[in-house]
Amino acid sequence: MDKRPIGIFDSGVGGLTVLREVIETMPGESTVYLGDTARVPYGTKSGETVTAYAIQNAEFLISKDIKLLIVACNTATAYALCELQKRFDIPIVGVIEPGAEMAVSATRARQVGVIGTEGTIASGAYFEAIKAIDQKVVVRTRACPLFVPLAEEDWADTDVARLTARKYLLDLKQDGIDVLLLGCTHYPLLKKTISYVMGDEVELIDSAVATAAKVDRLLIEHNISAKGSGDRSHVFFVTDSPERFEEVGRKFLCSTMQTELITHESTYKPEETGKK
Amino acid sequence: MDKRPIGIFDSGVGGLTVLREVIETMPGESTVYLGDTARVPYGTKSGETVTAYAIQNAEFLISKDIKLLIVACNTATAYALCELQKRFDIPIVGVIEPGAEMAVSATRARQVGVIGTEGTIASGAYFEAIKAIDQKVVVRTRACPLFVPLAEEDWADTDVARLTARKYLLDLKQDGIDVLLLGCTHYPLLKKTISYVMGDEVELIDSAVATAAKVDRLLIEHNISAKGSGDRSHVFFVTDSPERFEEVGRKFLCSTMQTELITHESTYKPEETGKK
Repeated sequence: MDKRPIGIFDSGVGGLTVLREVIETMPGESTVYLGDTARVPYGTKSGETVTAYAIQNAEFLISKDIKLLIVACNTATAYALCELQKRFDIPIVGVIEPGAEMAVSATRARQVGVIGTEGTIASGAYFEAIKAIDQKVVVRTRACPLFVPLAEEDWADTDVARLTARKYLLDLKQDGIDVLLLGCTHYPLLKKTISYVMGDEVELIDSAVATAAKVDRLLIEHNISAKGSGDRSHVFFVTDSPERFEEVGRKFLCSTMQTELITHESTYKPEETGKK
Repeated sequence: MDKRPIGIFDSGVGGLTVLREVIETMPGESTVYLGDTARVPYGTKSGETVTAYAIQNAEFLISKDIKLLIVACNTATAYALCELQKRFDIPIVGVIEPGAEMAVSATRARQVGVIGTEGTIASGAYFEAIKAIDQKVVVRTRACPLFVPLAEEDWADTDVARLTARKYLLDLKQDGIDVLLLGCTHYPLLKKTISYVMGDEVELIDSAVATAAKVDRLLIEHNISAKGSGDRSHVFFVTDSPERFEEVGRKFLCSTMQTELITHESTYKPEETGKK
């Protein structure tokens, strides 16, 4: 029995969809969540910058004595998971591999669609993860930058969201995919709208669900499960003012949250490119 | 004659609409632009965080020997202009006051609408600026968070943009405003769509145009105009990788750009709130 918490970070509120699945799947576990809201979003930033931010986030959570780290952000997983696993010696789980595995298991047509932020899609991480599992699966990808602000605006069920989804997704539908992987932690909030556009014949895969299942397995394998011990807690930290995080977070987590403000001493220094 | 450049900063690409007006209004002037793309957007961040970022941006540009600074970001102007004017001894111009002055001059109905990001609207800065000029003008405000991603996605002229604009703006139209102030540097890209929703009877005020006119007056007042001297230059810096900035920037500036990457040593430390 190991009562230390599971650490989870995301660039902002999106990772709360992963936290929700973790709490539902493993109700005995405590968690510490960090939303890097002072620097959100990661989706449009470079790999070097995102990796520097991810290392700072991991260091902060590890200082809270976590037993396992979930990188609950697709962009940070795409760019920084390997680097984090190299640097730190606790188990570290990203959201990409579990989602990719579930998508490959689910597809009958061997045609998988993947949607995400510009950064996640441009990184090619889902494409490579799926190909690494099954080279023969055809992967179609599409960046959908408006989905995050639509979810945060609470417009997931509006005509604007449906029109936007049609604009982004009709090509994927016509390509003949039968599985669509939601490669961004915000997208589960748009499931109904995405499903409306894609139709019943296309199965939606939620990385959050796949990731929670993998974490559950890892805790048992490493013999660090809390095993339903009584007193669990869920603690939240953000790097910018807590008000907006708590307000938007409630849409994701359907609960009252109390959040503490911390700060990162940013020490990363990208090399000067000298381009001019 | 003063050949030193004008400094301009924004959280990202949006301030390029201000730069464009500066170049058109004062073709003899050189400029140095800084887009804080590693930390964009400012619109959802707290006043304390945005002020810390603005001070860093100003210090960087002042190190480039600028003669005047334009804060080409509504959120940064709302939160940080006074602090910047206190700290630095060159003329510093924000985008809010010039826009407010132009809006008050333009309204016949004494009813002005203001749209912007969540941060700008929540700050109340436009409301106060307009009331300071004419207490009797009725001010209606509305945050429109989806307009920025729509502009950056190059969807300004789509049915999604028109539907979104209707959803945000119909209440303002029904309130009887005759002037609508575009309180975000991205919004000039959506002028056509906003105008389509608001109708010909509502005049749109572009803060970028108003700001450039004010800078032109200030250069002459302070006797620091370049007076059309031959060799001018336009230099660009960003805090994250230049590729996306250059790609998106072209939609704003209609020109080829070459951009240099710099970094901020982030040393600000917001007080711990201790909330938990």
